[in-house]
Amino acid sequence: MKELNSGICAIEGVSTWGIKEGKYGLAIILAEGRAVAVCTQNKVIAAPLIVTKKHLESQKGHIKAVIANSGNANACTGQKGIEDAEEMCKILAQKLNCKKEEILVASTGIIGQLLPVDKIKHQIDKVLPELASGSIASQKAAEAIVTTDTVIKQFAVETKGSIRVGGIAKGAGMIAPNMATMLAFICTDACLPQSVLQDCLQKSVDKSFNMTIVDGDTSTNDMTILVTTGKKECSATEFQQALDTTCIKLAMMMAKDGEGATKLIEFTVTGAETPDDAKKITRTILTSPLVKTAIFGEDPNWGRIIAAAGRSGANMNPEKITIEFSDKEGSATIIDRGSILKTTSKIKKIMKSDTINIQLNLNIGKATATGWGCDLTYEYVKINAKYRT
Amino acid sequence: MKELNSGICAIEGVSTWGIKEGKYGLAIILAEGRAVAVCTQNKVIAAPLIVTKKHLESQKGHIKAVIANSGNANACTGQKGIEDAEEMCKILAQKLNCKKEEILVASTGIIGQLLPVDKIKHQIDKVLPELASGSIASQKAAEAIVTTDTVIKQFAVETKGSIRVGGIAKGAGMIAPNMATMLAFICTDACLPQSVLQDCLQKSVDKSFNMTIVDGDTSTNDMTILVTTGKKECSATEFQQALDTTCIKLAMMMAKDGEGATKLIEFTVTGAETPDDAKKITRTILTSPLVKTAIFGEDPNWGRIIAAAGRSGANMNPEKITIEFSDKEGSATIIDRGSILKTTSKIKKIMKSDTINIQLNLNIGKATATGWGCDLTYEYVKINAKYRT
Repeated sequence: MKELNSGICAIEGVSTWGIKEGKYGLAIILAEGRAVAVCTQNKVIAAPLIVTKKHLESQKGHIKAVIANSGNANACTGQKGIEDAEEMCKILAQKLNCKKEEILVASTGIIGQLLPVDKIKHQIDKVLPELASGSIASQKAAEAIVTTDTVIKQFAVETKGSIRVGGIAKGAGMIAPNMATMLAFICTDACLPQSVLQDCLQKSVDKSFNMTIVDGDTSTNDMTILVTTGKKECSATEFQQALDTTCIKLAMMMAKDGEGATKLIEFTVTGAETPDDAKKITRTILTSPLVKTAIFGEDPNWGRIIAAAGRSGANMNPEKITIEFSDKEGSATIIDRGSILKTTSKIKKIMKSDTINIQLNLNIGKATATGWGCDLTYEYVKINAKYRT
Repeated sequence: MKELNSGICAIEGVSTWGIKEGKYGLAIILAEGRAVAVCTQNKVIAAPLIVTKKHLESQKGHIKAVIANSGNANACTGQKGIEDAEEMCKILAQKLNCKKEEILVASTGIIGQLLPVDKIKHQIDKVLPELASGSIASQKAAEAIVTTDTVIKQFAVETKGSIRVGGIAKGAGMIAPNMATMLAFICTDACLPQSVLQDCLQKSVDKSFNMTIVDGDTSTNDMTILVTTGKKECSATEFQQALDTTCIKLAMMMAKDGEGATKLIEFTVTGAETPDDAKKITRTILTSPLVKTAIFGEDPNWGRIIAAAGRSGANMNPEKITIEFSDKEGSATIIDRGSILKTTSKIKKIMKSDTINIQLNLNIGKATATGWGCDLTYEYVKINAKYRT
């Protein structure tokens, strides 16, 4: 697979643009084709998600464009929130000369406040004339949807069979398994049935965004939308690989950009009895404040890792486990089948890296899981309690 | 119920003492009678817990004394750890002229290092001659078992029927490597069958320590031991109330002393469909880094509360919920059946208190739950990542 630089604009026929004015941003993605979405599992679901689901259903997935705003999440806004989300779609539909049901909508930002519909209308007017299909356009759209993110997130690949998948995403805090505060918009040219697209997207999301944890909190607004122009025949397997690669890459960018984070943690469990056990341990480790602060402290604290694994509910035997830390330059085993090894200068060097891989082998089965997270820092507390310094 | 000042020494026939030398502490509680214990649910169980369970079983609960050390958790120490825990019991048993099975043992401190048995032997020799039954003795024992705690924890009550329950506890974080297990030793004079004692202890622990969250991590060494001298007849109901009061009070002391905490949070859910739903929400809220940092920031951030409740898995309807903040001087409603109310000066004043009560009424059922936690602060990160400043 070949990496491309143009994000969603890697796909022929997709044009996009975005604007960011203070904390309010707006992006429009013009991508005619068939779409599927995976939404938050939070019981509290924001208005744009309700409207997007409704539109997907009434259109059987055939859509024209996606509109997303940042600065206001349109969540906990009751019936008025739903009307406002519909209004956003309607304004854009009028400009594009299509039905409002052909527009999907997403929002991110503060919750509990009504959507500034007038502001959004003005921003639509500013963005529409700029719609373009180059890599700068994808970047502009990615910039428009960020909130606490410190970097923009876009990625694209082309398979050997020249199928392309490209995406943009936002998310830095409130990220946890089951689609926390994150938005991802992915485009492709793969021609596959609707049900296959939905299935592939769910599988990719489960492996990527649902295995990414910044603070364990999840949001009311999380959504991943996949749109295909359907121009190229391909196998589901080929597409799945490209989609996995794209989603995992975007997920890793989110974890690395976690609020206040100084280090990206990639955690892998091997040798678990069941895939569910492997996932449970991965999520518990990446959520553990004690593991996260230890990584911030550059301490390969295996005791906290074992204790967190022990409380995850997964089956394990502490006397069988092996723990290895690594970075791109090397690796060091610190527990070998239950025996504690001496801390070496090698492990100390690894802990100073900005990307740390932790491998936990339970040595009792064959199941594996991988997830991404980040350290817990003073800056995280500051960002989220900013009223006190 | 009347509050007493003498901790475990409120119970006639109980004598105790403790010593703290640097990070190593040792406490002995001489309490002849019947004992029950509730242990950690972590799959990784430290050696002293294994030995205590074995002794309780072989003695059918009839014991002479409890010994507890701080500074070394004797966890992840394999077969040698179990032998060392047995050795601790044996040394004390020889001095007390009883069987080693009549001694229960607990440890807290660093994990993965062998127990300093010689050190412990010397400390037993120093503590034994000092055993006493006044309030200072209980305090000395409470002091001996602390690790990262900043205050000692002891409490006792007398019921109208003059049954007494008194306890000491330690715990400020939830995990071991840097010493932060929770241990509680509770004595009573209530004469009740073994099975009733066990049942009452489990119920009290479920309502108190199991509803207390500092960072969501649990330790390999957590244990609550209850010993009764069995000198006073009483009803299970009367005893349960006194035990609940004692355990809840000790649990609140732990939450308030949470690592780096500036505020105690008491969170209550009412109107839930099931008790399980009420507990799920309580635990999710008290574990949420976003809720915890908001409280540190003195921000009554209802959005984070609703989003955390929404991801707990419990049934809820955001349009029905009511959220109220209160302290001992007053209360303020911020969401009334889904409607967001204006932030008043009253709520701002409440947020400055060092104990904040949050009431979430789901208004869809009759189940309730209460739990205790604390805010997430710079100091928490510092304590747990101390290698960097």
